[in-house]
Amino acid sequence: MSCYSDFPFPEDYPNYVPNSQFLEYLKMYANHFNLLKCIQFKTEVCRVTKCPDFTVTGQWEVVTLNEGKQESAIFDAIMVCTGFLTNPHLPLDSFPGINTFEGQYFHSRQYKHPDIFKDKKVLVIGVGNSGTDIAVEASHVAKKVFLSTTGGAWVMSRVSESGLPWDMLFMTRFHNMLRNSLPTPVVTWWMSRKINSWFNHANYGLAPEDRTQMKEPVINDELPGRIITGKVLIKPSIKEVKKNSVIFNYTPKEQPIDIIVFATGYTFAFPFLDETVVKVEDGQASLYKYIFPAHLEKPTLAIIGLIKPLGSMIPTGETQARWAVQVLKGVNKLPPRSVMIEEVNARKENRPSGFGLCYCKALQSDYITYIDELLTDINAKPNLFSMLLTDPRLALAIFFGPCTPYQFRLTGPGKWKGARNAILNQWDRTLKATRTRTVQESPFPFAILLTLFLVLLVAVFLIFL
Amino acid sequence: MSCYSDFPFPEDYPNYVPNSQFLEYLKMYANHFNLLKCIQFKTEVCRVTKCPDFTVTGQWEVVTLNEGKQESAIFDAIMVCTGFLTNPHLPLDSFPGINTFEGQYFHSRQYKHPDIFKDKKVLVIGVGNSGTDIAVEASHVAKKVFLSTTGGAWVMSRVSESGLPWDMLFMTRFHNMLRNSLPTPVVTWWMSRKINSWFNHANYGLAPEDRTQMKEPVINDELPGRIITGKVLIKPSIKEVKKNSVIFNYTPKEQPIDIIVFATGYTFAFPFLDETVVKVEDGQASLYKYIFPAHLEKPTLAIIGLIKPLGSMIPTGETQARWAVQVLKGVNKLPPRSVMIEEVNARKENRPSGFGLCYCKALQSDYITYIDELLTDINAKPNLFSMLLTDPRLALAIFFGPCTPYQFRLTGPGKWKGARNAILNQWDRTLKATRTRTVQESPFPFAILLTLFLVLLVAVFLIFL
Repeated sequence: MSCYSDFPFPEDYPNYVPNSQFLEYLKMYANHFNLLKCIQFKTEVCRVTKCPDFTVTGQWEVVTLNEGKQESAIFDAIMVCTGFLTNPHLPLDSFPGINTFEGQYFHSRQYKHPDIFKDKKVLVIGVGNSGTDIAVEASHVAKKVFLSTTGGAWVMSRVSESGLPWDMLFMTRFHNMLRNSLPTPVVTWWMSRKINSWFNHANYGLAPEDRTQMKEPVINDELPGRIITGKVLIKPSIKEVKKNSVIFNYTPKEQPIDIIVFATGYTFAFPFLDETVVKVEDGQASLYKYIFPAHLEKPTLAIIGLIKPLGSMIPTGETQARWAVQVLKGVNKLPPRSVMIEEVNARKENRPSGFGLCYCKALQSDYITYIDELLTDINAKPNLFSMLLTDPRLALAIFFGPCTPYQFRLTGPGKWKGARNAILNQWDRTLKATRTRTVQESPFPFAILLTLFLVLLVAVFLIFL
Repeated sequence: MSCYSDFPFPEDYPNYVPNSQFLEYLKMYANHFNLLKCIQFKTEVCRVTKCPDFTVTGQWEVVTLNEGKQESAIFDAIMVCTGFLTNPHLPLDSFPGINTFEGQYFHSRQYKHPDIFKDKKVLVIGVGNSGTDIAVEASHVAKKVFLSTTGGAWVMSRVSESGLPWDMLFMTRFHNMLRNSLPTPVVTWWMSRKINSWFNHANYGLAPEDRTQMKEPVINDELPGRIITGKVLIKPSIKEVKKNSVIFNYTPKEQPIDIIVFATGYTFAFPFLDETVVKVEDGQASLYKYIFPAHLEKPTLAIIGLIKPLGSMIPTGETQARWAVQVLKGVNKLPPRSVMIEEVNARKENRPSGFGLCYCKALQSDYITYIDELLTDINAKPNLFSMLLTDPRLALAIFFGPCTPYQFRLTGPGKWKGARNAILNQWDRTLKATRTRTVQESPFPFAILLTLFLVLLVAVFLIFL
């Protein structure tokens, strides 16, 4: 689910790829497509400004810093790929008394190794993916771990039904259709039922306060096991920080604390860009399709990866790049500026439709719908209806199976001839990764059941005879 | 589920109690019942022999070693509580080439801390509870972890349906009745279906080779998450050990290995007892009800805890002790020696009945059935049928709810007046442990669903009008 669409992970990779192997994969990708010759490493971009003749040429002046040497160059187009995790968000003002705290505190970005938590009483603030990961790691060595959350979260396991990877079951076009077409309360109820079947989030103190809004889910296999063994204690928000302790809201008792980790997320900014080019307000930039600044005279600057899809980031960014390249090449024409500004404003208003999931947070979007939109623009979206006649096996795999990135390379510019095969054997490759010891399947119980059923049938028959 | 029957865990204990807290609990228990004055610590038992007049008095001579000083004393009765995990089992002969191995190897009993695995290639042999725990801990720091198994295993999570503790759902009299009365293949099929709903054990290379026999389940919350991320690789049995590597059966490739951990279990023995008193053969001792040597002239020596119940060890051992005490006191009379020997031999033969689970391994037994047997003998088994009339709420909680140890203290000798209450509020106490952040339950989706249903009903009604 997280590979580039024309470059599957090697067959011996696990279903979820650890960071070191993912780095290896990126290097393989760069080598395979011979990208290293195009990349200038160790270079800071200091400033990107419009050229004086921008309205005619659309060109940019870029000032860079490489090994102490500043340079300037003119570029025809810019893609900004710095993402939305650029600046650690440390809202100390919201924690009265934090200045009197005599223990250690830091933002999750500074966290490197659980050793610092050894025998300490640790408080982690925020149940995003970072906060949860850090709390679980700390719980193996710390004396006590509190995980504090104001709004709660849905936590999901990588290990989904029957042990299959959750995203391969959840991210299908079929599920997506249901999610988007049923009334919002029904979808919310159905999803929380699914998620609660692993563990009841209310019983574990984790249930989100506002269950109608879909936040990015937290993926963690170990959290409930750590909670049920008392190694991690979920706590409400913080009322006050004292010298060596913390008071939580709705709980009278003061809790001694040695270390506080602020897993309070990130903000983003473009310090190298003028505000007239991209302005960030309320965690949003006014970008058409989350990519192009809507008000620029020439569409020669694209922002890639400034979106939080409910799905995989890699193929989303990749598709954005493919779409943007078609714009830069002039093949894909942008609509008039007024239409783009209207689209941007409509997204900012974000009125719930009453159907489907409710994405009320900035930058959040539906993975499949969004990518399909981009693919349609560049004529790379496969037509499932006609495919049902010409290649029904593939069509069904695409509709009911996981929405793997290969689907985005079946047709159109950048078509990859390995895509069909990669889709059809994706489940084989998935199962192969964990089937490292061959097990004889025993048909035995089913045979017995069938026999029992037949015996019963005969018995009933004899009785009624 | 694992407390002494008249001494529940403190309310602030988690649902699964870590070792340090369990030690604390044992100390509280000893203090509460003022046991410390009866216990002589730091004393090795060197020899237990029948007194010359044993056939008349039933007395024993016990030679002990305390701080270098040997002493001898006469006792009226002995309870041996050394358990079945006394001697590490290290079957090196079954691993050809182990003598040429240049890395480190040791039995799981010697394992203390995962630090020794840092950046090493680790092989753990055996998927019992120890092997699985060690492999999972190692996987956080090691370079590579292989977990080798010949027979496979069922792995269960503490976090069961909706996040409730697995044993509180699984160990009920209702489930037990179903398990024991349905045909063996049906039970086996039903249980493997339940267990596989978490993760398919065949897909994860873990499925037991012989699925009809119930082995002690492995409890581990993290193993599938470690497998799906490639941090632990399940492997078949070992064909050959080489200098710095291992060859697994059915796999041609040699795997480099730095450390081998033999999680190959334990055997038990009674070195302080003569073979004429208790003889261990094939992992069995000839004990009536797993407790009394059947052939002794006087029943004044009881073995406690030499059993592997499919359930909790603590209350099993406790009930054995209560039962044995009634025998020692002469209240509970043992049957004639021939009857006892017959019972022992019948158990050794161990013919599967075709119904219920199949306990084909030495010392394995059904938790509830076994304890009920002992309680019946000492008149401490509550009568559920009459209770259904006098106290239906309690009766239903006992039959459908978790078979918590308090049930064994409702009546008879050693009756505890707190038992009824402890049973009726056991679920409240369970949920309280994880509800450390209060969550507002939202009735909202159900209201909406009901509305939808009513609208639909009216619509259907109007159409047919």
